[in-house]
Amino acid sequence: MADASLAERVRAGDPRALARAISLVEDGSPAGEEMLSSLFLSTGRAWTIGVTGPPGAGKSTLVDQLVRQLRARHQTAGILAVDPTSPFTGGAILGDRVRMQSHASDAGVFIRSMATRGHLGGLARATADAALVLDAAGRDYVIIETVGVGQDEVDIVRLADVSVVTLVPGTGDDVQALKAGIMEIADVFVVNKADREGADRMVASIEAMLALQTVVEDGWTTPVLKTEATRGVGVTELLATLDRFREVSTPLIEERRAARVRAQLRDHVTGLFLQCLDDAVPFSEIDRIAAEIASRKVDPWSAASQVLRRVCPRRES
Amino acid sequence: MADASLAERVRAGDPRALARAISLVEDGSPAGEEMLSSLFLSTGRAWTIGVTGPPGAGKSTLVDQLVRQLRARHQTAGILAVDPTSPFTGGAILGDRVRMQSHASDAGVFIRSMATRGHLGGLARATADAALVLDAAGRDYVIIETVGVGQDEVDIVRLADVSVVTLVPGTGDDVQALKAGIMEIADVFVVNKADREGADRMVASIEAMLALQTVVEDGWTTPVLKTEATRGVGVTELLATLDRFREVSTPLIEERRAARVRAQLRDHVTGLFLQCLDDAVPFSEIDRIAAEIASRKVDPWSAASQVLRRVCPRRES
Repeated sequence: MADASLAERVRAGDPRALARAISLVEDGSPAGEEMLSSLFLSTGRAWTIGVTGPPGAGKSTLVDQLVRQLRARHQTAGILAVDPTSPFTGGAILGDRVRMQSHASDAGVFIRSMATRGHLGGLARATADAALVLDAAGRDYVIIETVGVGQDEVDIVRLADVSVVTLVPGTGDDVQALKAGIMEIADVFVVNKADREGADRMVASIEAMLALQTVVEDGWTTPVLKTEATRGVGVTELLATLDRFREVSTPLIEERRAARVRAQLRDHVTGLFLQCLDDAVPFSEIDRIAAEIASRKVDPWSAASQVLRRVCPRRES
Repeated sequence: MADASLAERVRAGDPRALARAISLVEDGSPAGEEMLSSLFLSTGRAWTIGVTGPPGAGKSTLVDQLVRQLRARHQTAGILAVDPTSPFTGGAILGDRVRMQSHASDAGVFIRSMATRGHLGGLARATADAALVLDAAGRDYVIIETVGVGQDEVDIVRLADVSVVTLVPGTGDDVQALKAGIMEIADVFVVNKADREGADRMVASIEAMLALQTVVEDGWTTPVLKTEATRGVGVTELLATLDRFREVSTPLIEERRAARVRAQLRDHVTGLFLQCLDDAVPFSEIDRIAAEIASRKVDPWSAASQVLRRVCPRRES
């Protein structure tokens, strides 16, 4: 009941309710899931931007500048700053506090750090759920900012409708070493700190790599923009580019959203199945079977097939 | 039948059969699974070493030196060089060819590159399966070498009985930025290229971080070794340290192997379940349900619960 009223307050846009709701979904608790399912039918209106890139690329400053422009257009924003790196560094939390202050008096900007709790797969799920909460709260834009360019980050950025990959010249980040996954997810490249030596060379390298890609998305050529986020240079062009993507790429975006829904449905079904599995086959028995596998009395494939038969008695042949 | 004889040839240690068998399991085909389940009961004897670290840390050279020492002890080795990075770079393949040549005449050394095909989770699975093949073939040591220090690599290195994290001084890799996951998986730290400026400082930093860790594994204090792999300096000490770990950490290693078996069992059961799911609920229907979710007619949690009921009719309440 308390959570029903929490969902109400989220829908009304109450920032404190937002913070509590996101904490709830971060925990992955049944109460969080219940709240999400009651919020879900109010979602689907927010526009989600993913911003990724290596540490030091100036992502936070760029996001701040984007938000400033959105606010000037009287649009609201929710920022999810995702840091898949160590709790040792504490970078996200610190940066977050500084940023919180600069927007503290503006109820139109909500900022939240999402940090790893346990497995990274869980972080992508928690970020997706937090984005749903912000969407239900009526935020016009949800910006998902994530450090790094690895597969984990790719999975997180895939949650967005449009993805911006931010790079910076002269940091030793060799463009040639860009992961294939990043080339695929980038709808827009930004070379930030473009006043630095080597910016034009970096733009040219990225464009050369893009030219090598055989698959071209219908109606969209991935642009490579230059920005100087600290001075706000190039940010208007970036926002205009993102607006243009939204206009011309509707079928692509719809297909992405559909693919995301299908993948999430599969994840949810698998999650429920694993709950069934835990109910049907107690841990002690899994331990016993695992011990038999470890001592090579049975192979894991035969054992798995026997275990599945306990949960789904008929289906498995 | 062809695969039954392939399994026979793997068990006999035929290097060409090894190569074919690993290709088969990389594809994740049913034929590969069948072969693995027939090989499985012959596994469990190999000792698996994981070596990870950032690009340029000299992992390949270090592994080559370790292998040289193993060969001097008349022990055989299989090396799995896992590169979760882009096919664009082609680094693993190139490095691999060079290394292949240096061991080309030695049947006691088998080297294989494992590259991303699709999703990274698949790479960890394929690497685990390839390690099983090498184990069944009677290799005394399986060395899993992987680039990077992200979560993906952690998952791959967790396949090993003992894990070596290799770092190098003066590359701008801040020890402070080491991911928590890496601190947890490292049984041995190696500061390679130890003749470089800053090596001792790096050793001291790692030791300071290790001292901060509250959890200490029973009977093992994670050592920080210095090596110069290109000249072979420190490699004898490294191998001696790995031998010592094997001696003193038997309960820990057994627990790791058991945890791995439990996790793999769960993965196999989930994999079989997803096959059931695909059989019971055709793609067209998943598409229809996904469209209903996308148009907010139903929430994903209720939909998932309905889908699960189709596969496991009774269990799900």
